[in-house]
Amino acid sequence: MKTRTLLMPSLWAAAVMTISCNVFAADEPIQPIRPVQQINLAQVELGKKLYFDPRLSKSGFISCNSCHNLSMGGTDNLKTSIGHNWQEGPINSPTVLNSSLNVAQFWDGRAADLKAQAGGPIANPGEMAASHTLAIDVLTSIPQYVTEFKQVFGQDQITIDEVTQAIAEFEKTLVTPNSRFDQWLLGDKDAITATELAGYNLFKTSGCIACHNGSAVGGNSFQKMGVVEPYKTMSTAEGVAGLTGKDADRFKFKVPTLRNVALTYPYFHDGAARTLAEAVDIMGRLQLGKKFTKEENAKIVAFLKALTGDQPAFLLPILPPSTDQTPPPKPFG
Amino acid sequence: MKTRTLLMPSLWAAAVMTISCNVFAADEPIQPIRPVQQINLAQVELGKKLYFDPRLSKSGFISCNSCHNLSMGGTDNLKTSIGHNWQEGPINSPTVLNSSLNVAQFWDGRAADLKAQAGGPIANPGEMAASHTLAIDVLTSIPQYVTEFKQVFGQDQITIDEVTQAIAEFEKTLVTPNSRFDQWLLGDKDAITATELAGYNLFKTSGCIACHNGSAVGGNSFQKMGVVEPYKTMSTAEGVAGLTGKDADRFKFKVPTLRNVALTYPYFHDGAARTLAEAVDIMGRLQLGKKFTKEENAKIVAFLKALTGDQPAFLLPILPPSTDQTPPPKPFG
Repeated sequence: MKTRTLLMPSLWAAAVMTISCNVFAADEPIQPIRPVQQINLAQVELGKKLYFDPRLSKSGFISCNSCHNLSMGGTDNLKTSIGHNWQEGPINSPTVLNSSLNVAQFWDGRAADLKAQAGGPIANPGEMAASHTLAIDVLTSIPQYVTEFKQVFGQDQITIDEVTQAIAEFEKTLVTPNSRFDQWLLGDKDAITATELAGYNLFKTSGCIACHNGSAVGGNSFQKMGVVEPYKTMSTAEGVAGLTGKDADRFKFKVPTLRNVALTYPYFHDGAARTLAEAVDIMGRLQLGKKFTKEENAKIVAFLKALTGDQPAFLLPILPPSTDQTPPPKPFG
Repeated sequence: MKTRTLLMPSLWAAAVMTISCNVFAADEPIQPIRPVQQINLAQVELGKKLYFDPRLSKSGFISCNSCHNLSMGGTDNLKTSIGHNWQEGPINSPTVLNSSLNVAQFWDGRAADLKAQAGGPIANPGEMAASHTLAIDVLTSIPQYVTEFKQVFGQDQITIDEVTQAIAEFEKTLVTPNSRFDQWLLGDKDAITATELAGYNLFKTSGCIACHNGSAVGGNSFQKMGVVEPYKTMSTAEGVAGLTGKDADRFKFKVPTLRNVALTYPYFHDGAARTLAEAVDIMGRLQLGKKFTKEENAKIVAFLKALTGDQPAFLLPILPPSTDQTPPPKPFG
């Protein structure tokens, strides 16, 4: 509220303030999350239904929202996820929140964008265990879906390309602006506490910022997990090496966003770090060769907790019912 | 819109119309669903979060909404449900919609009311597989829950009694007024088609109405499944006999509500009937000794589809995050 004293009733003053605010944010290596821009609302509404529809899985039980739960920071808050038939997933589910800001999707970046990502879990035998053909057969058997796809895409046939496009468009709306840290970036100096600001300064001076920067505070590069010290894990995930076969890419993963990190526990690709304090300690030692004191650790954690933004707010979608022609789900065998 | 011709600008005329509408509905063995009355909104908001919170399960993956999915008619649309560790449930998940109108809860009526029901699945090893102690430990470790429980119930300690009370209060809001059939009951003669009306008349004259009556079109009595002919099933569910041990109670189940029945497939306690046509055919033969013609069956199905009411409309709840003290979920062993 103190910023109100800056307000003067002249266009000139307003212009100066706008410029100084921009300069303020531009000076920092982290930029505020922008509210969603340029979106196809019809695709969003369709994609929202698909995101919540467990009929895209073989069992009829698992939807996108099962592992990227929008009630829980866009994650499942499990070490690794539960797939079809209660299979134990190989990797921690990354948050869908702000995922449109990622340079690529999945921990190893094997999907170029959200649309390319969305088809993966549907057909993955360890996740939703359906096939694209089955998903299309299910949707095509439901007249309300047929009509809505036709309205949205103007085609008679439902295609997997349309399905993933609509899901991706919905996911683009899942940005979380207005965190207290962003309010501070935008000029409200009282939005964060002195401890949180000290944590941010430590985050910058210690080198965390080298990888966790930009508007998503991460998500824009691939880095080796375990630079100064090797990372010890039970996980078999190889990172980018799984795609390239190159030894140099072993344990190279996409740097995760730290936006809403207070909600997206547990941490790392293997979900091995249960708390933020643990994650900060391990990152400091393994990536930066730095042993944070308890006080330093607490300050950085305090800063990280100020990165929780406005969570998506929307009505729970109501799904169109199956028909007598819909292939029934097969949860058991 | 034709009813508009009845409107006359006098209080007397309005009074006459109100009376005649009431008489209209009172003449019928089915009454319209009333919008929710007398509710504790603070309990509802807390209960909504709990209903969606998978941390009430051992795995951290299963919430009330997993098997009573409010995007899908308050059911999971599976024959029988998936429980902890992908266990195959013994019975079809009944809809939570309008369940406050049931004479008792569960297919065998073993819980007197929604509050008594709500604690069951949390502690059932084949469903959410937690314990009441674990559920309370989890909630007590989350300051936002502690504060909200204290606000709502005015006590320092969170108890399972408060948890089930809040969930039950939320569930009381899940009524579905305003189906086309209810609009017809309330006096709009154009709200249902001639076929649907013919179906309703058949439903009454054939005897379906003997058990499926009242505002929930069922839910108010226990009846034997297989009266004229025995019911053949692979299910081991015994019905009320499982509680009383009496042979006469074998296969005696609570008559399910037919409200929103177009959304709550598959049908019967064992989920064996995949379609409404199948369910109507079996019910006719086994309960009434009546073989409906294809045309009769289609008319009754048309009537049943007019029983879909307004689905619950609310913002997806955002759950308060766990803390370092929260007992972690144990999905695998």
